[in-house]
Amino acid sequence: MKEAEIVEVIKGAFGSLVAPGAYELADDAAMIPPVIGHRARVVTTDVVVEGVDFDLGLYPAMYAGYRALAQNISDLSAMGAFPVGFVWSLAIPPPWLERERIAELARGAAVLAKLRMAPLFGGDLSATSGPLVVSITAFGDVEGVPIRRAGARPGDFLWLSGPVGGAAAGLRVLRERQRAGPSPEPFEAWLRSLPDALASAVRAHVMPLPGDPAVLASASAAMDVSDGLAIDANRLAAASRVRLELEDLDSALAPAATHEDALHGGEDYALLFTAPPSARVDGLRVGRVVEGEGVWQRGARVEAAGHDHFARLLHLAH
Amino acid sequence: MKEAEIVEVIKGAFGSLVAPGAYELADDAAMIPPVIGHRARVVTTDVVVEGVDFDLGLYPAMYAGYRALAQNISDLSAMGAFPVGFVWSLAIPPPWLERERIAELARGAAVLAKLRMAPLFGGDLSATSGPLVVSITAFGDVEGVPIRRAGARPGDFLWLSGPVGGAAAGLRVLRERQRAGPSPEPFEAWLRSLPDALASAVRAHVMPLPGDPAVLASASAAMDVSDGLAIDANRLAAASRVRLELEDLDSALAPAATHEDALHGGEDYALLFTAPPSARVDGLRVGRVVEGEGVWQRGARVEAAGHDHFARLLHLAH
Repeated sequence: MKEAEIVEVIKGAFGSLVAPGAYELADDAAMIPPVIGHRARVVTTDVVVEGVDFDLGLYPAMYAGYRALAQNISDLSAMGAFPVGFVWSLAIPPPWLERERIAELARGAAVLAKLRMAPLFGGDLSATSGPLVVSITAFGDVEGVPIRRAGARPGDFLWLSGPVGGAAAGLRVLRERQRAGPSPEPFEAWLRSLPDALASAVRAHVMPLPGDPAVLASASAAMDVSDGLAIDANRLAAASRVRLELEDLDSALAPAATHEDALHGGEDYALLFTAPPSARVDGLRVGRVVEGEGVWQRGARVEAAGHDHFARLLHLAH
Repeated sequence: MKEAEIVEVIKGAFGSLVAPGAYELADDAAMIPPVIGHRARVVTTDVVVEGVDFDLGLYPAMYAGYRALAQNISDLSAMGAFPVGFVWSLAIPPPWLERERIAELARGAAVLAKLRMAPLFGGDLSATSGPLVVSITAFGDVEGVPIRRAGARPGDFLWLSGPVGGAAAGLRVLRERQRAGPSPEPFEAWLRSLPDALASAVRAHVMPLPGDPAVLASASAAMDVSDGLAIDANRLAAASRVRLELEDLDSALAPAATHEDALHGGEDYALLFTAPPSARVDGLRVGRVVEGEGVWQRGARVEAAGHDHFARLLHLAH
């Protein structure tokens, strides 16, 4: 079963109990009532699993905490929402029942919580015999209505809030370090010793900065690039029933990143959005919206190949 | 490390980034801004792990889904809040990647979602090599201010919204069935074949009905009984800096339940609350609030022995 099939099974089981604000479970976050004045409240939830969504063989625990919250803040940003706060729950295995390790994980989330003014509202803990599982639910407020994936119109320009591919390039550097074997050098000292482009890529992986929702002021549609531009742009194209032409991806490549990293890497947490040509936009213009379907680059279709949690799981299982 | 110690480590890491509405991470749910008119929004999160918090050797998957949501609805009730909706995330192991099993889990949550008008707002999925982990975050609204654990005053009466001990008595019946070995009889048919008191106890375990927040209209303090009356009443006494005298627990025992079940069983999801003697209360009166500390019954102190996820975990690990 693929992720999309599981979502369909869940939608079927809940039927009319899927809230209208849940947008058919297809957007980055949901709108929860009530709308107060011109402000809507949105909510998003993400779960990350050690060994599947993060790898503590590659970086210290604090980055796992940071990245777990970054995913959620990014989903809020994708709806145009500024964080109000978050709750988290941890399923903790025995090796993690150690004060400094838990503290490090929490401090990582606190770094981003402080940067984005997203306080902690609570949490829950349970034990597990399996890998560490961190589940975060974040709330945000948006002026006006949340920005959805549907809404791009032919004629709009296609934008990114920041460079992409850095997280995948950084992962490559991290894996090279791991292959070289255990090192007595502290992670941060190693990071400082790297050439600028590589250090920037590693930072993009371990401390990605979610896009600023303010850039979406004129956006017609938006989402965050979490699974790679190829799969995410195809999702936006499908939701908006348009064709996206990638024209200038080069200008949006992160240091050390290749086109492949940008298209299929994921975890960059930049915002991908569309806006009318007349809009003043603070971002990187990478293409345009035309009639049709799918994502195209230089006359060739960019297929929606990317990350599926359960493809990976089946790989782990077999 | 005990659960309370881990919470302290997390509080330390977040420092001033613990929101004021989080009540020092000590209540059943947190208040998130803004307050709208006379109505406050509260949020709660709970994580349950297969083999630790639920046991699919004992009952079908649908009850695991029901119970996961029941915990959260109960935490909302404990603050006096009516559900607005919820989000959930699932970390799914390979044996669960089967359409009917996921559907059953979702249908179980949907049964309670329908009963309590708590629609699904969204979710997230990841893969795991470990046990199934279900994390739910629920939102609710309360008229006036949320009811907290602190607030009980000497002279108040002590109440339960419904009987306790049933979940533990039901667990005993379920374990007896398991010890008897695999049975071709469907779970529901077996349940119907039981004497009334035992069937009622099993239902209290697999489909607990969270307390109705309406009973808290005059409450001075409240919480839900999730870890057993002994530990939970001690928590309320400590938060309110009072002594609780249990005077008539007999009247609050669920069918087939013993005093031991009520005190140390947990997972009943009744509401434990206090109210001034003049208040008209729809509940079971089980005692009174006096000056002092701790919980007492017939002149003997009731110690706060109960459930700690990590005691159990260490047990699993060794």
